[in-house]
Amino acid sequence: MLITHATILTMNASREIITDGAIAIQQDRIIAIDKTPVLQERYPDEEQLDASDKLVIPGLIDTHVHLAQAMIRGCADDMELLQWLCERVWVLQGNYSQEDGYVSARLCIAEMLKSGTTTFLESMLAHRYGFDGIARAVQESGIRACLAGIVMDIGTYATQDNSMHPGMRESRETSLLGVLDMHSKWQGAANGRIHVWFGPRTPGGVTSDLYREMSELARQKNMGITMHLAEVEADKIYLQEKFGLSPVLYAESVGLLGPRSVLVHMVWLNDADIARLAETGTHVSHNPSSNSKLASGVCKVPQLLEQGVNVALGCDGGPSNNDYDMIREMKLAAVIHKAVSINPLTIPAETVLEMATINGARALGLEHEIGSLETGKKADLAILDLHRLHTTPSPNPVSTLVYAATGGEVDTVLVDGKIVVQGGHLMTMDEHEVIAQANKHAYQVYQRAGIDIKPKWPIR
Amino acid sequence: MLITHATILTMNASREIITDGAIAIQQDRIIAIDKTPVLQERYPDEEQLDASDKLVIPGLIDTHVHLAQAMIRGCADDMELLQWLCERVWVLQGNYSQEDGYVSARLCIAEMLKSGTTTFLESMLAHRYGFDGIARAVQESGIRACLAGIVMDIGTYATQDNSMHPGMRESRETSLLGVLDMHSKWQGAANGRIHVWFGPRTPGGVTSDLYREMSELARQKNMGITMHLAEVEADKIYLQEKFGLSPVLYAESVGLLGPRSVLVHMVWLNDADIARLAETGTHVSHNPSSNSKLASGVCKVPQLLEQGVNVALGCDGGPSNNDYDMIREMKLAAVIHKAVSINPLTIPAETVLEMATINGARALGLEHEIGSLETGKKADLAILDLHRLHTTPSPNPVSTLVYAATGGEVDTVLVDGKIVVQGGHLMTMDEHEVIAQANKHAYQVYQRAGIDIKPKWPIR
Repeated sequence: MLITHATILTMNASREIITDGAIAIQQDRIIAIDKTPVLQERYPDEEQLDASDKLVIPGLIDTHVHLAQAMIRGCADDMELLQWLCERVWVLQGNYSQEDGYVSARLCIAEMLKSGTTTFLESMLAHRYGFDGIARAVQESGIRACLAGIVMDIGTYATQDNSMHPGMRESRETSLLGVLDMHSKWQGAANGRIHVWFGPRTPGGVTSDLYREMSELARQKNMGITMHLAEVEADKIYLQEKFGLSPVLYAESVGLLGPRSVLVHMVWLNDADIARLAETGTHVSHNPSSNSKLASGVCKVPQLLEQGVNVALGCDGGPSNNDYDMIREMKLAAVIHKAVSINPLTIPAETVLEMATINGARALGLEHEIGSLETGKKADLAILDLHRLHTTPSPNPVSTLVYAATGGEVDTVLVDGKIVVQGGHLMTMDEHEVIAQANKHAYQVYQRAGIDIKPKWPIR
Repeated sequence: MLITHATILTMNASREIITDGAIAIQQDRIIAIDKTPVLQERYPDEEQLDASDKLVIPGLIDTHVHLAQAMIRGCADDMELLQWLCERVWVLQGNYSQEDGYVSARLCIAEMLKSGTTTFLESMLAHRYGFDGIARAVQESGIRACLAGIVMDIGTYATQDNSMHPGMRESRETSLLGVLDMHSKWQGAANGRIHVWFGPRTPGGVTSDLYREMSELARQKNMGITMHLAEVEADKIYLQEKFGLSPVLYAESVGLLGPRSVLVHMVWLNDADIARLAETGTHVSHNPSSNSKLASGVCKVPQLLEQGVNVALGCDGGPSNNDYDMIREMKLAAVIHKAVSINPLTIPAETVLEMATINGARALGLEHEIGSLETGKKADLAILDLHRLHTTPSPNPVSTLVYAATGGEVDTVLVDGKIVVQGGHLMTMDEHEVIAQANKHAYQVYQRAGIDIKPKWPIR
């Protein structure tokens, strides 16, 4: 296949932008990328996908997703975090069947694909949602994923004891060994689109011994680890009181730092923490919508980047964002740090686009496969139609993408060389069926959980 | 006309939500609003607009818009404010012809209508953009507008002397008297859809004498006044140094406070300022995207609301936001104050929707005409299709609207009882022609101004 006449944001090492650009794709890989006339001459017989007046970007990489939370979007808005978690999210998710997990995963993946996300890192995938079914949803949909299976042995959250719905508890055996089982079964499946990681619960839910054992196993098997850390101030206080350590130094003490670790949120850090993250090559997943909506605070992204930490981007979940649109997430990431630092030059559009593409690939250990459009890399890309009122005019496509566009402008998406969205329509799923199933299963889960979300205003 | 089977967020005094609701419209007014069966029985012969599974909201009210800036969207991203203003925005706008003003107004209005905005307050409309042509664009498009003509006699900006492009200067005569001319000509035109206001420049651009003269005229003629104030810290410092007064107290000293004044941005306020705004019934237009992107700071919205100040919402302009989508603006308004105050309960979705509807109507002195869906009010409304992946499920429509939706979900829009958007298509303008004209005129303006916006990255 030959994509022609596009403006291409390659995100290659020199961040080259190609106008009237073309991309030649063979099976799952980019075999050439150049000006359109050059590739038309080289591949005269290739099927052409005309992308005139369109923008081609590397598929976006969402480094923090909760698939199971898509179906409980809007279940806990404008609430205190512990109430949010203990009275809503955990209670609802504790009532999930394996089928509910599959249905929610499909809703979430469909939304991601349609808004240009081609790879995601799922955090803390509980086995009770049905790891197999969710891996199948990834396989069927055509998306690329790192699925981090939950690891825990205590099951509490920070200083809040006994607060977790029984259905949300996992033991050391069902979690650690469960993830290893899933790793043997799914690692490299779907033409290499599926990776299995460890997704331990945040400190308070896991003993130091289990963290160490898991970290050692991850090193032996070259598996990634992702964990929420320093999301709220209580997390920091808990670790200081219990271990006398800052979040990052505690994480280091149990083997959680390093280039295969993606630590998520990371709002409550001091300068020494930031330096240690940089020295150890640990990645940070920044989730500005979630951190804002849940009032966790504002992550020190400018300082992290300045110190050389690799910062990627994530949308988090349906009750915390409440969307999975990486393009909208880019805008918030670009503007919120300017507001807080009173510095209009911080985190420019270009930096945010790096966070959403090549930095994400680096965080997942996939920078040689995805995150930029280059010969030899996987053909994971999104084609945006910027012929819209709100993206007119567009003197700089990077700025238009970050500051004006939304996921609604995504026209075509390829993952692994396969067209999964075309003309704004999902090719691998029936959108109406996905929505209908999600509504049906959400209703059942709310019923089982005995939770009825009502508007605050009177209903006639 | 009878809109049937909708979920209606009325925004009436008790904020009632009507399920399976209907709205009966005669000419420009709502003549009844009730459950669908009730109105179907009362108006059996009325033409029906089936809004099953759709959400009806009052048309959104954008209380701070620069029409002329739509065409220079993205002209100055990630820049210092004075450079943004003096080297880009003013230079480009200084090169506008009257036709350019008309073309930009059409682009801006088209984007607003398609994303559910039915009324806007234009700030500082310079006469050189062609007030007549812009009023005509309002008239033709069907939108409702308060057009605040620019008032100035100095022409500098805060502490920056001689920085304004000559083309942007206006004298006392061409501004103050010009606005009065436009008021005689356009006030109440287009079946009352057009209002003419005073839009003085921020202190530094206007002498105290001219402010006083203008305020007196506004009172005599019952005209509204809108002005940028305390947007950046430099504004506050300038007034303190020159007059020994805080922004609000200076505004009061020249007659700018009161229930016909909408002061915009208002980031740098102290407690006494906030109290004085409340006591005088002065309205605040909060522009979170613009304040964030331009690094002005974060407006103290929770404190303003707590003290009883009426706070409305605004998108500002193409170089400062860079979109005119009030639904996206609502989300930022709902999340940013939570992040900054570390309080998840502040500025809930309901409050933000009030800011975007009824508070906006109050700010414009039009609360008896628009801002809620009630019998006797103007039929200004938006119908949203929430049958989308990213708005599924939707247990609470208010939260879905604010936290998950975008302007892209707007299906149908009525202003003054007339359908201006249907099935996502503009009925009063040709969208492709609007885009083509905007691109053409933008190109010419950039050429004349000698400004070439290039991506920061190398282009092949």
